[in-house]
Amino acid sequence: MLDLIQELWYLKRDIVSDDFDRALFRLAKEVPMTIHEYPTGEACWTWRVPEKWTCHEAYLETLDGRRLLDYQDHPLHVVSYSLPFEGLVRREQLLKHLHVHPGLPDAIPYVFKYYERDWGLCASQALRDTLNDDEYRVVIRTSFEPGILKVGEIQIPGESEESFVIVAHLCHPAMVNDDLTGVVVGLETARALLKRMGRAQESGPPPTNGGRLYYTYRILILPETIGSVAYLSHNEHLIPGMTGGLFLEMLGNDSPLALQGSFQPESQADHCLTTALRGLDPEGYLGAYRTIIDNDERQFNAPGVRVPVLSLSRVEAPKATGRPPYREYHSSLDTPTIVSGERLAASLDVVLGMVDAWERNYYVVNNFKGEVFCSGYGIWIDYRVNPDGHRRLFEIMERCDGEHSVADIAHELDTPFQAVWEVVSLLREKDLVWLSRTPQPTDPRR
Amino acid sequence: MLDLIQELWYLKRDIVSDDFDRALFRLAKEVPMTIHEYPTGEACWTWRVPEKWTCHEAYLETLDGRRLLDYQDHPLHVVSYSLPFEGLVRREQLLKHLHVHPGLPDAIPYVFKYYERDWGLCASQALRDTLNDDEYRVVIRTSFEPGILKVGEIQIPGESEESFVIVAHLCHPAMVNDDLTGVVVGLETARALLKRMGRAQESGPPPTNGGRLYYTYRILILPETIGSVAYLSHNEHLIPGMTGGLFLEMLGNDSPLALQGSFQPESQADHCLTTALRGLDPEGYLGAYRTIIDNDERQFNAPGVRVPVLSLSRVEAPKATGRPPYREYHSSLDTPTIVSGERLAASLDVVLGMVDAWERNYYVVNNFKGEVFCSGYGIWIDYRVNPDGHRRLFEIMERCDGEHSVADIAHELDTPFQAVWEVVSLLREKDLVWLSRTPQPTDPRR
Amino acid sequence: MLDLIQELWYLKRDIVSDDFDRALFRLAKEVPMTIHEYPTGEACWTWRVPEKWTCHEAYLETLDGRRLLDYQDHPLHVVSYSLPFEGLVRREQLLKHLHVHPGLPDAIPYVFKYYERDWGLCASQALRDTLNDDEYRVVIRTSFEPGILKVGEIQIPGESEESFVIVAHLCHPAMVNDDLTGVVVGLETARALLKRMGRAQESGPPPTNGGRLYYTYRILILPETIGSVAYLSHNEHLIPGMTGGLFLEMLGNDSPLALQGSFQPESQADHCLTTALRGLDPEGYLGAYRTIIDNDERQFNAPGVRVPVLSLSRVEAPKATGRPPYREYHSSLDTPTIVSGERLAASLDVVLGMVDAWERNYYVVNNFKGEVFCSGYGIWIDYRVNPDGHRRLFEIMERCDGEHSVADIAHELDTPFQAVWEVVSLLREKDLVWLSRTPQPTDPRR
Repeated sequence: MLDLIQELWYLKRDIVSDDFDRALFRLAKEVPMTIHEYPTGEACWTWRVPEKWTCHEAYLETLDGRRLLDYQDHPLHVVSYSLPFEGLVRREQLLKHLHVHPGLPDAIPYVFKYYERDWGLCASQALRDTLNDDEYRVVIRTSFEPGILKVGEIQIPGESEESFVIVAHLCHPAMVNDDLTGVVVGLETARALLKRMGRAQESGPPPTNGGRLYYTYRILILPETIGSVAYLSHNEHLIPGMTGGLFLEMLGNDSPLALQGSFQPESQADHCLTTALRGLDPEGYLGAYRTIIDNDERQFNAPGVRVPVLSLSRVEAPKATGRPPYREYHSSLDTPTIVSGERLAASLDVVLGMVDAWERNYYVVNNFKGEVFCSGYGIWIDYRVNPDGHRRLFEIMERCDGEHSVADIAHELDTPFQAVWEVVSLLREKDLVWLSRTPQPTDPRR
Repeated sequence: MLDLIQELWYLKRDIVSDDFDRALFRLAKEVPMTIHEYPTGEACWTWRVPEKWTCHEAYLETLDGRRLLDYQDHPLHVVSYSLPFEGLVRREQLLKHLHVHPGLPDAIPYVFKYYERDWGLCASQALRDTLNDDEYRVVIRTSFEPGILKVGEIQIPGESEESFVIVAHLCHPAMVNDDLTGVVVGLETARALLKRMGRAQESGPPPTNGGRLYYTYRILILPETIGSVAYLSHNEHLIPGMTGGLFLEMLGNDSPLALQGSFQPESQADHCLTTALRGLDPEGYLGAYRTIIDNDERQFNAPGVRVPVLSLSRVEAPKATGRPPYREYHSSLDTPTIVSGERLAASLDVVLGMVDAWERNYYVVNNFKGEVFCSGYGIWIDYRVNPDGHRRLFEIMERCDGEHSVADIAHELDTPFQAVWEVVSLLREKDLVWLSRTPQPTDPRR
Repeated sequence: MLDLIQELWYLKRDIVSDDFDRALFRLAKEVPMTIHEYPTGEACWTWRVPEKWTCHEAYLETLDGRRLLDYQDHPLHVVSYSLPFEGLVRREQLLKHLHVHPGLPDAIPYVFKYYERDWGLCASQALRDTLNDDEYRVVIRTSFEPGILKVGEIQIPGESEESFVIVAHLCHPAMVNDDLTGVVVGLETARALLKRMGRAQESGPPPTNGGRLYYTYRILILPETIGSVAYLSHNEHLIPGMTGGLFLEMLGNDSPLALQGSFQPESQADHCLTTALRGLDPEGYLGAYRTIIDNDERQFNAPGVRVPVLSLSRVEAPKATGRPPYREYHSSLDTPTIVSGERLAASLDVVLGMVDAWERNYYVVNNFKGEVFCSGYGIWIDYRVNPDGHRRLFEIMERCDGEHSVADIAHELDTPFQAVWEVVSLLREKDLVWLSRTPQPTDPRR
């Protein structure tokens, strides 16, 4: 994953741009990918696809020609989608258009104004502090022209047409943790699932890490927000079949993993992924919808769509704290040096573990009535020896009633999905339960 | 409102009495009013209309003819619905029938015994403390005779036959804050709504403060409890169409406004009026059903009726504290001096504001899918400039799904109704939502 | 009850054994009882009926023939269902098979290994501490042979086939509080209900302590767990009609009464029995399912059965504390000396009081609309004299809507069942409500 990051991170991947396309095409070499195209001006629900934007040249100079900053030195020096501008500007006017980072004096901030139509440059606070002349010369040569917004979709068909979406955005130029890490983890997830699909001839549930897939997976790589809206608005027929999803971003640095719930906290996706996280990363933490970080999951959770999409990211300080999610966030300091292969691999493991849980999130239907004769089936846990294990076994068993999914049981017992699955697997091995994709209530008094 | 109070307050407005009729007829000159009549003995569900009661003369004298108290001096000197009595009574016996105020030594208390059939006088504690003779002479000349209980109804038809009831009682003799202030605020509310109805030729939702009415309003002025029971039992066909209501009382003194919820705290009426209060009077407070003060709302909330009627009043100490709602409560000190035009006007504004909210309490149905392209519609709030406003805009927008009313959204977000309405209006202006009187779910996965 | 305890307690009532049968047959002389028979090997859902077990002789000796413990001295000296064993064993090996009580140095513990197939002896810690020889002689002569597991059922038919089950186990050899006290309280309950049934010719609801029964009662006396499973699996057709139940155990010592809820805490059985306990024993306490003690209620609450069966016992320290429910629990010190007739009688009163509540747990349907004219019906409680009584009267009355049972009202108001019943009875006497076995909603707006 680090190689791809090295190769692609510095590209000027603005939302509709040649470098975005370059990055996406490069990714498409790794796995079979459908590229959806949406031309400038195309209606996408309440939105329209914006123009392609290119910055040809941009700099700030003193009147005597000393160049203070140059787009050639760093793509973040120009506001993404800045209008073109050329001329002499007085210091005060310049400062209104010259953005700096609020927390990092030596970093260039990442600023975008897709729809506000303004010109702007970005510099370090350090540089800005030296600007004492009365007047400066500004040159921003950008062009807006018809283009094609692109969304990459890696589709991995399972037995069912019900799909789980994994979403990452690719449109943050010259930065790494946000957003390229989410993309490469998504890509590796796709690769792992494609391998599983390759073994589709294998038979028999329950799926294991290596078994074939039940759900169809759609891994989407797109420009933030408008990419999701473009895709969803042109694939409305798929929405009712989307039963869950996960947005990925900021997965390579040292912050702890945070899982943000969907708008529907009682959905199967929420029960499953949140309880799975506990088993996968005890240091990970949970947050409600919109309390950790906002991204494309918003479009999926929004009215008229309402797909329960969660979000996984490494976040030091959740949104509610008012602090940035990590120090280098949205700045020129978000470079390959702040991410590591270990962290990326650990993130990937968590995503794959969540997919595993999702595949296994059956409703557990009891073949038995009353309590199971545990000794007779060799699954007895002596309460005198292991009281917790004994209690847990029975707490799980008594919820195997065709009305609780594995995730529902884990959620009710506040225990990892994997711990419940272990017991359920054992019961299934003994033919004490069967697994159903839909509820199958067995209460005789209903 | 103060003029009417001055004119009517000192009348002996006992529940069925000539002065009650006088007061009601006087009010009927102000606005078109239907007077419902229920003769003595008429069955009203489990109740019967009581007789008309008149006190012709009443006094307490020493044996040597010194008059200690006289009904002519103040109507509260005789227990409302006291039996007639005439004779010499020993001091101890007298004290059992001579009521004083528990907290105010110089006030005559308000005591009523409609159904207990007893005789009684009321005096100040100060007077009572002087009663040291062995025997006194009591004269109470009251009569009970067939009469007609009256309920005044101001009906203001709206587009729909669904009705909202506003209720106030008029039966507290020679007192002002409780209960005449509720009556005059109800009357002014009626007058304002009649004006709106007058402009019924105007067209087009959404209703604004000046637009025509959607709901039918029934403002009821009646004797407490038996008046409500009489009206409801004779208008059972209207009950299913009553979707909310508000009882009014004690609205002229300096205590803060208190809004008491109905028996059904999740009703639209409760969600709407409680969230509206926040926008109308930040110092107002909320209380659950039966925790602030008991009045006619009980008959509407009761079994077999179950109309969610809330109650608005100015209350220093809610019922649960065991203290009186305000100092002069149920005493001869409840006179015009303790109420002010400013307080009455402020109370009226709150009631009209609640009606406004009720009229605007539509279900908000999204024309949009996904999130709205806010910049494109000119409704973008920059999170860098106004993070709270930005958050609120999105929190509201993501609940516009045809399943939430404006009040439901405000209730969920714990925010004033008016703040939600402002955003919803904006969305409606942009044709991003439409407003429905009934739920219209748009979730494609339902 | 003490006489029966004296007669039966010392019998070796192992789950399938001659002494179990002896004890059950003796009980069957007291009341008409059906004995259900399930032969060894019979399939009972996931279980099989075990063999009959007999211990003919067992002792531990020094090599020089000094007898250290003998089954003849106390039945608990041999692990229930111990395998036969005869031979010399080294000290270390012996200690692995010689069980002692964790808390009581002078008591022999109660140990059972029905399905683990092992041999074992039990001794006091004091004796064990003296075992310093290298080798000992062990003789355990037990036999396993086909037998018949027995379940006694006292069936007391009521008007309805819906049944309430009362369950106690009889299989704890030579102990009293656990489990014989539950059995004798169950038996006396049966006797009291049979008397009521005897008066079945009497007519007219509401049932009082002496009236005829509405529900059918099934009092089950059985060996723990396997007895419940055997009975339920052979009477599946009865399960849908079982609407509640109560397990009885440990009812004779000085610990406070504890009522453990069922798996379905919102069931009518839970609402009814928990609120009834408050009125019957203010010192009794409540606990959630599986937090106080585990017994046969588990089989009834389990998947595929799901009958809400609660459990009543005298428990010093609930299961969750990790301490034993009472000092002498599962030991040779659980003798007649630790139980008293007073405690048994008090427990019986509570059980009968719960049955009374269950019989009276009607839905309360209002004949009235609005609030009742309390004075007119002579049920007015003056709020000036008795504010709590007044409030309670109205809180109950306003929930008489055909949707709340007596137990639901008591549960909502957090008040004893009996207090609500008292008010409901009064209302029924006045013909203000009628009582229904099923919900009869009267809300006109539904």
